Formats: sequence, C-alpha cells, structure tokens
Amino acid sequence: MSELPGSSKPVTTIGDLSKYDDTSVTIRGWVYNKRSSGKIHFILVRDGSGIAQCVVVKSQVSPEVFGAFDLLSQESSLTVTGKVHKDDRAPGGYEIQVEDLAIVHVAKDYPITPKEHGTEFLMDHRHLWLRSARQHAILKIRHRIIKAVRDFFDGKGFTLVDSPILTPASVEGTSTLFETEYFDLGKAYLTQSGQLYAEASAMAMGKVYCFGPTFRAEKSKTRRHLTEFWMVEPEVAWANLNDNMDLAEEFIEYVVQTVLGNSAEELKLLERDVTKLQTVKRPFPRLHYDEAVEILKKNGVDFQYGNDLGAADETIISQQYDRPVMVHHYPAACKAFYMKRDPEREDLTLSVDVLAPEGYGEIIGGSQREDDYDTLLKRLEEFNLPREPFEWYLDLRRYGSVPHSGFGLGIERTVAWICGIEHVRETIPFARMIYRNTP
Amino acid sequence: MSELPGSSKPVTTIGDLSKYDDTSVTIRGWVYNKRSSGKIHFILVRDGSGIAQCVVVKSQVSPEVFGAFDLLSQESSLTVTGKVHKDDRAPGGYEIQVEDLAIVHVAKDYPITPKEHGTEFLMDHRHLWLRSARQHAILKIRHRIIKAVRDFFDGKGFTLVDSPILTPASVEGTSTLFETEYFDLGKAYLTQSGQLYAEASAMAMGKVYCFGPTFRAEKSKTRRHLTEFWMVEPEVAWANLNDNMDLAEEFIEYVVQTVLGNSAEELKLLERDVTKLQTVKRPFPRLHYDEAVEILKKNGVDFQYGNDLGAADETIISQQYDRPVMVHHYPAACKAFYMKRDPEREDLTLSVDVLAPEGYGEIIGGSQREDDYDTLLKRLEEFNLPREPFEWYLDLRRYGSVPHSGFGLGIERTVAWICGIEHVRETIPFARMIYRNTP
Repeated sequence: MSELPGSSKPVTTIGDLSKYDDTSVTIRGWVYNKRSSGKIHFILVRDGSGIAQCVVVKSQVSPEVFGAFDLLSQESSLTVTGKVHKDDRAPGGYEIQVEDLAIVHVAKDYPITPKEHGTEFLMDHRHLWLRSARQHAILKIRHRIIKAVRDFFDGKGFTLVDSPILTPASVEGTSTLFETEYFDLGKAYLTQSGQLYAEASAMAMGKVYCFGPTFRAEKSKTRRHLTEFWMVEPEVAWANLNDNMDLAEEFIEYVVQTVLGNSAEELKLLERDVTKLQTVKRPFPRLHYDEAVEILKKNGVDFQYGNDLGAADETIISQQYDRPVMVHHYPAACKAFYMKRDPEREDLTLSVDVLAPEGYGEIIGGSQREDDYDTLLKRLEEFNLPREPFEWYLDLRRYGSVPHSGFGLGIERTVAWICGIEHVRETIPFARMIYRNTP
Repeated sequence: MSELPGSSKPVTTIGDLSKYDDTSVTIRGWVYNKRSSGKIHFILVRDGSGIAQCVVVKSQVSPEVFGAFDLLSQESSLTVTGKVHKDDRAPGGYEIQVEDLAIVHVAKDYPITPKEHGTEFLMDHRHLWLRSARQHAILKIRHRIIKAVRDFFDGKGFTLVDSPILTPASVEGTSTLFETEYFDLGKAYLTQSGQLYAEASAMAMGKVYCFGPTFRAEKSKTRRHLTEFWMVEPEVAWANLNDNMDLAEEFIEYVVQTVLGNSAEELKLLERDVTKLQTVKRPFPRLHYDEAVEILKKNGVDFQYGNDLGAADETIISQQYDRPVMVHHYPAACKAFYMKRDPEREDLTLSVDVLAPEGYGEIIGGSQREDDYDTLLKRLEEFNLPREPFEWYLDLRRYGSVPHSGFGLGIERTVAWICGIEHVRETIPFARMIYRNTP
C-alpha cells in the first residue's frame, strides 16, 4: 500500500493491528457504528479485515477532529490515525486512541440501518448488505470451503480441468436449460454439469476435477435452489462405487474439519453449534437404498419403492445420524442414463447420494459410470436421448474404456450446512433465483 | 484405491513408481505406444500421472501374456504387474519388468495416430486429443497457473467473491453479449467481467478477487480470442493507479516464477525457452501512453494519437523489453466509462495494460475507478448508457465512496504465453470459438 498523503504513520489494516501494539498507525475504513459519552466519542470502524473501536477524547484532539464525529454517519469512509492499545473488552481485542481523523466521504441516509429489514429489501441492496458482519462471516467461510476443496484435490494429484459453460447439448434433459444463440451454430445451452467432460479428461489424466458455475432453469422456489450455483466434480479412472464413497467421505471430512480449524471466529459470529460439525468424521454410515426405504417405512412414511427420495425423506434419514449419510444403489428409474447398473440387480444403479445432517439434504450426487459401449447406447435409446450429440462421449467407450466414477458437490448447499443458515441465497455473493437476477 | 481383483501387489500410479524401486507393483493405464524386437516387447503405458516403459520378455511370462501384445492397439486399456527398475534411459526414469498383464478394453482404430493431423481434425477429437503428452503438459501448466493465482491472492488476505454469470446488463456495451431468456424477468446476459460486482465487494471486504468464466460474443477469429475464457479480477479499496501497477507486477512475477519452479518437466516437453521467463522479475518497465506512442513513431508506425494500441503495436512495444511492460494513462476515448481520469489531463485515464513479451500482447487490463458520484453519472451519459441498471453501482459512490483500483488477467492468454504456444485454443480443455462449440 502507498503512504497516505499527509501521514507519516504506517498504514495498516484492522486485521493486522496486533502487530502494532503501542504504536501509532493509520487505518482506512468505514463507520460501522458510533456512540458518545459527550467528552469521549467511540467510532466502530470496519475495513473488511476486521472491526476496530476508535476512541476520540476531546482533550486529546483538535476541535475539528472532535467535531468531525457529528458528520460521521453509518458507512461514511474515513482514515484514522492513532495509537494501538490491546484491550480485551474491545471488539477484535484492540482499540485505537485517535490522534487524527479525516473524513473521505460522508454517506447520506445509508439504507440498511440497525433496524430489521425484510429479506427482499436486503436482497435488493445486496451490494450494500455484503458490508454486514454476518455476510462477511458467510462469505469468508465460503472462501475457506472453496480453498479446502481445491487443496484437497490438488494434494491428491488430481488435475483441474475447467469444463465448458456453453455446451451443444444437455446431460439431464432439455426442459431446465438456459439457451442462447451461438453465431451460425444454432443454439447453445448453459451447462448443468461438467461431468461428461470430466469423464473424457479422466481417461486422459487419470484423476481430474472440474469446478465452476452450473445452471438450472428450473422453476423451483425453495430455500435450496439457485438458478446459478457452483459445483465441484471429481472424476477418477479405475474407481468403482466403493472407491467413490471412500473419496466422498474423506473429502467431506477434510472440508468440514478445515473450516472448523480455520474459521472459528466466523462460525462463532454465526452462532453455529460446532459440536454438530465436530462429529463429521469418517466412516460415514452407508445405507443401501433398500435400507433407506426401511427406515422411512419404520417412520411411518407412505413411501413408494422405486421413487427418488424427497427432501422430507432425506431429512428423516439424516436425522438418524450425527454425520453425513451415504445412500447408495438408487433405482435406475430415478437416476441419469450414464449411471452403471448393479450387475446383480439391473433395476439399481451404482450411485451414491450424500445427505448432510440437520435436514440440509443432498450435497453430493455421484455414481460409477456405464463403461460398456453397447449398454450405454441402449441407455441413450431408453432415455430417448439423441445419439449424435453423444458420439464423442461414446468414443470414451470405444477407445480403451475403463471403470470410472465421480460425483458432484454443490458449494452453496455445503456453505449453508456448514454455516448453519436457512436459505442458500446468503451463501453466494449475488444469488440468482427464478424471480431475481439483480443487482 | 481398491485392490485389483486377482492381484496381491500394491496398485500404484506411474508418477509414484520411484517409491517402489525393485518391488512388484500393479499399474493401470492405456497403451501410448509399443515396439518389439521379437523376443522382447516394449509397451509404453500412460496413466495420466506419467508414462512408463513396460518390458515383456518371452522367457519370463506365460504365452498368453506374451501374446496379448499383438492385441494391444494404441489407447487400449490394461493393467500391468511387474517389478520396478530404475533406468535413466527409460521415459520417466523407471521401467517395469512385466510379470503379468491383463487387457481391459481393446481400442479399435484409435483416430489420432502418430502421423500428422490437421488442427480442425484434432479439435473435433478434443476429447481424445487430451490424451497426448503435449496436451497433458499444457493443461498441467494451466492448473499450476490457476493454483498460483489463487495462492497469491489468498496469501495476501484477499477474499474470493464469485461474481454472477447471469447479469441484467452489460459493462462494455451490448453488441458482444450472449443473451438468454430469464423466466419472467426478460433477458439476461452472460457476464463479460465481474468487475462491477468486485467493486461492490471491495467496499465490503477491502481486498477481493473474482475468478470465473467470462464471455464475449465477438466475431473475432484470431489466435488470441475465445468466446468463453477465464479471468481473475482483483479489486482493492484505497488503491490508486500506482498501487494497482505494484500489485500487477508482483502478481505476474509470482505466477511465472511459481510455474518455472514447479513445472520444469512440462515446460521442457513443450520445448519452451525458459530463459525468456526467468527474466520476468520486478520492476517491470512502466510506459506512459505518450511514451508508447513515441516508440511506435520511432519504429515507423503511422499511429494516430488517441487510438488504442492494436496487436501489432503491442508487439513492437513489448519487443523493446525482456519482461512484461506496463502501459498506463490510455486516452479516455478508447477505454471504459468507469475509469477515473487523470486530474491533470482529463483526456487520459488512470488505466494500465500489461503487455506480455514475445508478441503475446495484452494479458492484463486495469484501472483506478471513478469514485465520484456526479462524475460517474456524467460518464454514463457520455457513453450513452442507461442509468437504471447502474443505480446499484452508483450506490457505491453514494455511501462511503473511496479510491479503488483493480484489473483483470485473462488466463488463456497467460497460459499461451507461459507455455510458448501459438493459439489459445490449446490452453483450455474444451475451447469455444465463433465457429466451434463442440465437443
């Protein structure tokens, strides 16, 4: 950072104040809150790295500096110079005895006040709502989760392969796709999954992952649905369903334990009950679909064998355990064409969904993939999918086909679960839902 | 990884063979190439982690195993069990004395043969072309670059903020946008830049970066253009143009030196002249636009003062130096509405482009942002942009505005430069160009 004009004091951030105990520094930020006892003003300044209490004592500063307090409305920007003091009672553990203060810009009538606001109002002002301590905590945990995801796969020798967003066809049907004109090539669609591309890449690089935004033009208006969400999708050559489950549980354990170890402050601010996360350790329970159905029936659910699990069903099952549960061998009728079938039960797939605890539902969906050319061709027909757009995908079964498996983890649902928040709209900086694409 | 059925030997990858010298192991992979001297067969096996020479001696294996060689066409998949021997002449430094071998799937008539193929043919078969050693090297360097980018910003306390892909308006005009229907909300557009969202986030978190795919529906058919490309965009509150240039040069130095330190093998395979990368050290030359124009004139270019630099101009300027060059203070007429002007020369912007050496052209574009409300409003009018979609962006200047700066770095151009390759189509797993959105 550059020197501030007119100040010879080191410029630092609030997060680094502990390095400057008993030293005069300059910080730059925004007014988070303020109060006064007449002769002493207290200004809470935030700068993105933390919040610091700045104390302005009338007898120690010029009348101009003392008087500036009255102009400092919420979210006004300013620079503050003063001596750092350790004070365990202060937010962040340090306060600043103000020597000088300069207003940079006065914010008039900042719309988000300490009073309660409705969610729609806050989402309309999302660009400003991001300035709140709660949103900071959520987005910092989101960042930590994403970093943990990448570190996990990088550390295991996976190669990152960014799959394309603009695709000529869909993986899971065309009814829920965003489409766009693509020059002279007709329509292109926004990807719903990078999986098919990850499969091609796994045949090249062995172990790969793609990680990017994915899209669903689905008219679902629930607390778990976004039209645009981030997904990480590992894919591993030579891995079967068991390998896939081993990878999924090791992965989730790593992500959760990394967040616990690095984001204690943010979890505390969110009042997250971390005992519910501390238990997320391998092994996770593994339930055959048949066993899951038994649990539902024991709990009085009138469940039709062969159906997919609904949100309410998932909640009942996950409530049986103190950690994520892996449900495997879902019926073929409710899963995608590319999933390999159980050779001993052709009606079941070698699939696995991982259900988060506390009713957060499915965070991972995965499977072993069909690796036999003729069988895959038959599946395309059974699912009424055209052959031509999948010719390249069939090539993977023409040329050195091998068993392989993978899964996808939705980032926003994972953030919601780990943060313990109700709705996914707060888990991404600028959420997109069926009734919102602004700001 | 699971045990292989029928094998009691440890299953490993080619990349890990050095851990098993003089030990029998099993590897799983694909036939990269083969040759025979009659009584000894040599099979080059690749598995994504490396290439290993497998030696099959007639007198040491069963007739079935020895005979399997004839069936092993290029890209057939197989498992090989045998003893690992260090051998400096072998590719990868280790070879395997085969004890057993099982064919998993025979690839018939693999379309990419060792003979020369045209680029269009290879791009049509991109899902298979990825299996070549050259494409491995490029994609592994791409991965290394992306990891270095994230490590750099994470290490400096930046917060990752994923900006939205679906946006209600455009940053730089509507003529080059992909559009899609968005439920009842009319049209939405694929983002060209996350910058405006990064600015909002920087006012909240101080230092942020967004990193995701961006889109240009531009009819440019050059070796530098993709319709879908990845961009990282840091944005820093309180940073001016000089801070921005300091950050850009430290960032580029870090990325290049990290790749040099970690990807020597891949750079060698690509026959990259690494001496051209070793010089990429701070400080980078900083050229005022006026100085850049002088250089062009001295080199006989008939350049019109006030114009943007074209690709040919950039090449002439970058050829003067052995490292990236930063050209700053571009004329306002050729830059975006949000760039702050030089207070002493209103016709110039506080902008910077970083030009890569060796003719690779612009890899970074950035600027200090206009932070004054009235001026920004005037700019919107001057650029004939509607006010309504930018109201939220104007809010950033209404409520505690501060000086701030940022830039965007295009990943694919950076990969092309560091790898020393001609065309960006090889720098991303599945390139999208105006005439291609498959496979």
